[in-house]
Amino acid sequence: MTTLPLGETTPFSDSPKEECGLMGVYAPGKDVAQMCLFGLLSLQHRGQEAAGISVSTGKQIDYEKGTGMISNVFANERLSNLKGINALGHTRYSTTGGTSTRNIQPYVIETAHGPLALAHNGNITNADKLRDELLAKGVGLTSFSDSEVLLMMIAGAKGNTWAERIKNTMPKWEGAFSLVFQSRTGLYAVRDPWGFRPLSIGYFPDWGYAVASETCALNTLGCIKIREVLPGEIVVMNYEGVNKAPGMKAKKKTAFCTFEHVYFSRADSEWDGQSINSVRERMGAELAREAPVEADLVIAVPSSAIPAAIGYAKESRIVYSSGLTKNNYVGRTFIQPTDELRQLGIRLKFNALPYNLEGERVILVDDSIVRGNTSKALVKLIRDSGAKEVHVRVSSPPIISPCFMGVDMGTYDELIAHRLEVDEIRQYIGADSLHYITLDGMMKAINSKTTYCNACFTRDYPIDVQAFSSSKFKSQS
Amino acid sequence: MTTLPLGETTPFSDSPKEECGLMGVYAPGKDVAQMCLFGLLSLQHRGQEAAGISVSTGKQIDYEKGTGMISNVFANERLSNLKGINALGHTRYSTTGGTSTRNIQPYVIETAHGPLALAHNGNITNADKLRDELLAKGVGLTSFSDSEVLLMMIAGAKGNTWAERIKNTMPKWEGAFSLVFQSRTGLYAVRDPWGFRPLSIGYFPDWGYAVASETCALNTLGCIKIREVLPGEIVVMNYEGVNKAPGMKAKKKTAFCTFEHVYFSRADSEWDGQSINSVRERMGAELAREAPVEADLVIAVPSSAIPAAIGYAKESRIVYSSGLTKNNYVGRTFIQPTDELRQLGIRLKFNALPYNLEGERVILVDDSIVRGNTSKALVKLIRDSGAKEVHVRVSSPPIISPCFMGVDMGTYDELIAHRLEVDEIRQYIGADSLHYITLDGMMKAINSKTTYCNACFTRDYPIDVQAFSSSKFKSQS
Amino acid sequence: MTTLPLGETTPFSDSPKEECGLMGVYAPGKDVAQMCLFGLLSLQHRGQEAAGISVSTGKQIDYEKGTGMISNVFANERLSNLKGINALGHTRYSTTGGTSTRNIQPYVIETAHGPLALAHNGNITNADKLRDELLAKGVGLTSFSDSEVLLMMIAGAKGNTWAERIKNTMPKWEGAFSLVFQSRTGLYAVRDPWGFRPLSIGYFPDWGYAVASETCALNTLGCIKIREVLPGEIVVMNYEGVNKAPGMKAKKKTAFCTFEHVYFSRADSEWDGQSINSVRERMGAELAREAPVEADLVIAVPSSAIPAAIGYAKESRIVYSSGLTKNNYVGRTFIQPTDELRQLGIRLKFNALPYNLEGERVILVDDSIVRGNTSKALVKLIRDSGAKEVHVRVSSPPIISPCFMGVDMGTYDELIAHRLEVDEIRQYIGADSLHYITLDGMMKAINSKTTYCNACFTRDYPIDVQAFSSSKFKSQS
Amino acid sequence: MTTLPLGETTPFSDSPKEECGLMGVYAPGKDVAQMCLFGLLSLQHRGQEAAGISVSTGKQIDYEKGTGMISNVFANERLSNLKGINALGHTRYSTTGGTSTRNIQPYVIETAHGPLALAHNGNITNADKLRDELLAKGVGLTSFSDSEVLLMMIAGAKGNTWAERIKNTMPKWEGAFSLVFQSRTGLYAVRDPWGFRPLSIGYFPDWGYAVASETCALNTLGCIKIREVLPGEIVVMNYEGVNKAPGMKAKKKTAFCTFEHVYFSRADSEWDGQSINSVRERMGAELAREAPVEADLVIAVPSSAIPAAIGYAKESRIVYSSGLTKNNYVGRTFIQPTDELRQLGIRLKFNALPYNLEGERVILVDDSIVRGNTSKALVKLIRDSGAKEVHVRVSSPPIISPCFMGVDMGTYDELIAHRLEVDEIRQYIGADSLHYITLDGMMKAINSKTTYCNACFTRDYPIDVQAFSSSKFKSQS
Repeated sequence: MTTLPLGETTPFSDSPKEECGLMGVYAPGKDVAQMCLFGLLSLQHRGQEAAGISVSTGKQIDYEKGTGMISNVFANERLSNLKGINALGHTRYSTTGGTSTRNIQPYVIETAHGPLALAHNGNITNADKLRDELLAKGVGLTSFSDSEVLLMMIAGAKGNTWAERIKNTMPKWEGAFSLVFQSRTGLYAVRDPWGFRPLSIGYFPDWGYAVASETCALNTLGCIKIREVLPGEIVVMNYEGVNKAPGMKAKKKTAFCTFEHVYFSRADSEWDGQSINSVRERMGAELAREAPVEADLVIAVPSSAIPAAIGYAKESRIVYSSGLTKNNYVGRTFIQPTDELRQLGIRLKFNALPYNLEGERVILVDDSIVRGNTSKALVKLIRDSGAKEVHVRVSSPPIISPCFMGVDMGTYDELIAHRLEVDEIRQYIGADSLHYITLDGMMKAINSKTTYCNACFTRDYPIDVQAFSSSKFKSQS
Repeated sequence: MTTLPLGETTPFSDSPKEECGLMGVYAPGKDVAQMCLFGLLSLQHRGQEAAGISVSTGKQIDYEKGTGMISNVFANERLSNLKGINALGHTRYSTTGGTSTRNIQPYVIETAHGPLALAHNGNITNADKLRDELLAKGVGLTSFSDSEVLLMMIAGAKGNTWAERIKNTMPKWEGAFSLVFQSRTGLYAVRDPWGFRPLSIGYFPDWGYAVASETCALNTLGCIKIREVLPGEIVVMNYEGVNKAPGMKAKKKTAFCTFEHVYFSRADSEWDGQSINSVRERMGAELAREAPVEADLVIAVPSSAIPAAIGYAKESRIVYSSGLTKNNYVGRTFIQPTDELRQLGIRLKFNALPYNLEGERVILVDDSIVRGNTSKALVKLIRDSGAKEVHVRVSSPPIISPCFMGVDMGTYDELIAHRLEVDEIRQYIGADSLHYITLDGMMKAINSKTTYCNACFTRDYPIDVQAFSSSKFKSQS
Repeated sequence: MTTLPLGETTPFSDSPKEECGLMGVYAPGKDVAQMCLFGLLSLQHRGQEAAGISVSTGKQIDYEKGTGMISNVFANERLSNLKGINALGHTRYSTTGGTSTRNIQPYVIETAHGPLALAHNGNITNADKLRDELLAKGVGLTSFSDSEVLLMMIAGAKGNTWAERIKNTMPKWEGAFSLVFQSRTGLYAVRDPWGFRPLSIGYFPDWGYAVASETCALNTLGCIKIREVLPGEIVVMNYEGVNKAPGMKAKKKTAFCTFEHVYFSRADSEWDGQSINSVRERMGAELAREAPVEADLVIAVPSSAIPAAIGYAKESRIVYSSGLTKNNYVGRTFIQPTDELRQLGIRLKFNALPYNLEGERVILVDDSIVRGNTSKALVKLIRDSGAKEVHVRVSSPPIISPCFMGVDMGTYDELIAHRLEVDEIRQYIGADSLHYITLDGMMKAINSKTTYCNACFTRDYPIDVQAFSSSKFKSQS
Repeated sequence: MTTLPLGETTPFSDSPKEECGLMGVYAPGKDVAQMCLFGLLSLQHRGQEAAGISVSTGKQIDYEKGTGMISNVFANERLSNLKGINALGHTRYSTTGGTSTRNIQPYVIETAHGPLALAHNGNITNADKLRDELLAKGVGLTSFSDSEVLLMMIAGAKGNTWAERIKNTMPKWEGAFSLVFQSRTGLYAVRDPWGFRPLSIGYFPDWGYAVASETCALNTLGCIKIREVLPGEIVVMNYEGVNKAPGMKAKKKTAFCTFEHVYFSRADSEWDGQSINSVRERMGAELAREAPVEADLVIAVPSSAIPAAIGYAKESRIVYSSGLTKNNYVGRTFIQPTDELRQLGIRLKFNALPYNLEGERVILVDDSIVRGNTSKALVKLIRDSGAKEVHVRVSSPPIISPCFMGVDMGTYDELIAHRLEVDEIRQYIGADSLHYITLDGMMKAINSKTTYCNACFTRDYPIDVQAFSSSKFKSQS
């Protein structure tokens, strides 16, 4: 509904970054901390720079947190002291710097009604206003996170139960928020009425429940009877079972995030009734129908674009094969190259398979183009490996506008499609042809009656982002 | 004024434990973080299990914290990123356990008036009530500490300046509180109107000021013009200099802690106009006058009782020498002896000098006896080393009652003088004679017109401790 | 030539484990340590439990080592102190336990001719004998590694140069050894005369050389003019350039390791003149010809079997798609599941894509079957996801015998193909059909005139492994 | 016998540094690793920068090592995996730098006769020659330490038992070496025939034995029947008990290190039949006789000079008191002061007690003066605190020459007494009078018939140090 003026910026980004995975386990009598950890590992792709797990003993909530990959944070049996009846986990992308430990979730506070913890995925667009209101009430906050604002608002909310307090406060929140609150006795799964980010619930075959950002984490834990938390819903998980509490009505025009289908979610997750992998294969097929080209080979930018490339290959009946490999052991953070090493560029991460590419007309499928630098380098790598032609097909439309609902896509200036026309982009990346899927084609592949947020492709934001876009506070969840 | 009923307990303790050292530095243009660290090292004896330093850049307050000795917490140039105009440091005794990191000070919060940090030494006796009031207002707290309660109360207090907010809130606080608040621009040194715990201010010869729990830390930093923060006083340290702000009137009957003279403070500190070392020497001299005994040698339990032993020797004209040595490298925390090793007992910490003790009549001076186990073992060690007689002289009266103002002395049941008469204690520890200094003698040695708190010797508490003594919340500052 | 009697055991293994990646860089004036690190990251798949890098300043050799993934070992700019003219790196699979740090390579010693370091990939079958000879000479060794034996033998060898000493000693070594020695001034790349393990050399476009276990590491560093070190060859890399030194004649019947093609090497590496990815695609195509089956879908066990599955799909003209996903963030070491979690089994690592599998006749391509447990679990997972039929195709023949040349494949008892016939295996894993590629088919796919070692498939060992197979010393390189 | 030419240098030093403490425990059935750790803590003053403990299970020797204080190295129950029948520990002063971990003792090697470990205190003056001989034999060494040379020589020595091998090799070693070897089954305590460094053996009251650099460590462990290892002796400690093996004859002119009495050993240790504390008290008494002065107060430089100050006070009948305090929490390594902080100088470590010093004529007793800077700063501090006169008395003669037997005293140029006459030193440090004890006085206080090494005071070295003094290899033990 709102069109943002040009020129606004969000922090620098190399590629779309999904921020935060949530994992909750309610299973008295089991090792809920370890189960939470195992589920969280399935959400590592949603944030790799800090993680935390809090556990309620029924009396108090204890926690362990740290920066880095989940396996590092929880090395050395660090969880062994956390025993309890329910657990809450979070993995996130964080800014670097000395005080970043302030921002590691879950946030845990003591309140008049006992301890309460929160893990949040999303971004509150009116956080500044809410924060100022809290501070004006004399409340101090330990961080700059919008998530802590949500938690502190609940601590002071009216209501006889946590469910009531959440219900009474929720209407004040604008933006994207998939939340799991943790009390002494249970978990409360909450999804904003727009439904921006995913959140699902599953049952253990024997006893207990879990909630997670993505169904793949529930599969990992062996859950059955998986269902989504619906927009506006509050679901209570405790000794009484899994019960829906009064929440908010879903917005008439929901705003599910298209990018979950395009890039963020793991291929083996399901969302909005759809298999992510299947959606991506259909996107590839759409691309093949929208922009056929004579070629010998369909290859993917590994590993996120593989399903779309397979879909393209199936539909076009052009053979699918590998043309690029990716080194999964190269992390973002620890490499600070010297001059000699900067030139190595993408070679640290990608390599080509010249035997497959030599003399071929290649269709390269990618899921999105943000700044264009990686695409340019990959096209060059493929050509240098002997390919005769390189045709780039992208399974999402041009990204022309930043996201203000929790996805770090970069600033207007960084977005190549904000600055250049498609053919200019083609020239820049050095492709023989370039086609982005159309918005219609993409939505056809998603194949849902739900309304999605496509603001990054259309600049048509589902909520007012004016205030936020000039915010001094950066979302951290 | 209040006499506590018998039977109350406080947590287990091996010896009186002083909890917390505070260190603040205001010196724009200097390396305030390093200076704060160096001062803090002089306060390591006040708490050895966690430490933190926060620094204001003028815009924001960043911090580093950790468990362990100061030198471990701040190893590896960990402070190098903290640059700013003022710094606040804290070292503390903490309980062990997974969530103890919650309790490491300084506490730092964001408020409606900008960031605010607090370091606290003392114990708030009405913390439960204050905490409940805060929680009832809807404020969430991240810890169980009374210190965080103080900070959060200030965040929401009325007033146009931090000094006003502190002034307006301070009267609600009962108990011991030496505080240093840190804002963007300055430090605020506050001492409770009873004056329980020390707090002093010093000037750098060139430019800048420092505030510390003890004057030894100010000496270390080269401060001159050192003066105490008076009971009830609020002192503001910022770009306008060091200025007294309206605070509270000191209580008519102040309650300075006698144990600072007896044991806690470092010998080279001064407090209440007195050199701690001199007070201790005078205590020894008093002891010599009160309980002379024919002997060949005066020795101390190292190292805290050395001044008193020297004082005893001077007054009695009996020769002073070393009879026991102490291993300064044996920390409290990392040794968990097996059965074979438990029997080693105090030998890990103390050893005797038999050449000095053989055949001698020995006067052993200690500063206090809490549970009596160490005294018993030391008397045995001295006898086993050949001493003919062992006369124990103690430079504080029998401890018959716990402290509720921030000193962890153990429970009633643990206090040997609560259970036994002096002669029974003598028998228990195996001494030929035992004399505790009289209350009068001790106060004569302290030589001050100030009123002191002697509740641990008299059970006469200066404030109502009923509520606190049944508190479910343990002080951590 | 030697057939090992049944019943011998090697240590437990879950899947074939490649042990060790080597990386050397000679490039005075550049940041050789960082370059070595970046190359090593491309070899992380060859060993993930310890790593080390040594650097020669021209005068001395310094090093950093540690346990864990390369990115952990070299976190926090740990390499920043290592500056020099050449660097040697190693990544390895290690046994756990307190003294394992003894075994982290490179080994660095001081000798009569200056410092010398060694990194080794392979296994010396007569190590016990050589070790005993060394010890009998009065030499002490710091580890149980065969690699240290090689290094110490060179330290005491006759010869005027390192190349001569290596040449003079090399004939005594039996088994697999790709080696890089590092002296003050240069690197020495050595490959055993059987040629068991790969080793290649590349040139930087401007100045300098590199040597690595696999060509993918040389690609990563931007090397051109890549060539293999030949069996028996000694190649010297120093200020005089890259020069062949007199070494050994290659064995008439070389013994290249087939498993490098099947599983170990990264798909984007080349070896023996072949692209690994292409060999694997051809293996899949062979499988399709050898064992065609009517089906709807070809899927791979990710990620090593993807090329073979693509090859199968191309040849069979059955559609290739994804049916399983793999979580790359799940490491081997840190998860010690409780009872509740053990049942999660392979779900921590693999998940299925039911939308792709539902109602389909599926061909599942894997690269090898060692114990059969994973295969069994995956077949069940695929069936549970709705597949009507599951046909397993394996791109290597049945493994009936352990490897004694540096690959940890498990004991005879653990090898399912040692105990069961193919149809029994099919029953065990629950497949509708099962076909292993024939030895001939596999070798046809490898398409080389070189002689390979296929002892794990044939029990026909190229060298005498009797002594080794009863060895008390376990290879660590 | 040898007088070293002027101008030779040894590495920089701030004060005499004792290098290395040894601790061995033989006690099957007990927790030997923990006992070794506890004993080692009593030797922390002999070296604070790295430590290690090795344990023999009876079959193999495992170890844990690390840099830093003992309590840091062995934090987190790191020893819990080391179980066995005997243990060997070492604490050392190390040079900094990337490869210093090479030099942490005990050294552990595998030999033809099983595993062997060594911990060494001292310095081998002909180490270069021995090292070259070893290297020439083709042996590689992992470090630059003379200690590893000793160990490797034993590995290759002739003899049927370890005791024989040690006996056969020992005569080749020149210099200072107190050693403990550890084999699978026992410990071997060895002392050089000059007897430079201490080494003592004790019995546990129930079962087992211990060996340590100082008797205080044996006291700590509750040992009885303590006796010294004699010069040239080899003592075997195993299941047969404690037995003397054939060793070397003690030199006619032994060379016990005087500095152990002056400074290194802990006051509660005994050596050469003397209580260290008593020797120091007698040194003080000698000083009082040699250089009486009218004064009001005797104070010590804490804490090493306290016994001498007490001795001075007793003899002179001038009152002993405290005038300076020392912060035991200030370690050497982690403080790297900025310019603002460098001026703090010794205040980080020492503080004065002005109430004791004001208006007084003070005798300041120190144990030694190396460079003179600390003395100068302390005299100033005492004067600034109001003392009228400061008379410095030193309980060792002027140090005019470096030590080559394992004590890091600094270079000729750094030694103030090498450059200046006593009265010039007095002027430099600003004292009213200065007196060093005479060599005769000091030896009278030591009160032994044994011959001592006083080379640092006389330049009369007991063995040829020419070769060593130009050595490129620095001692590390």
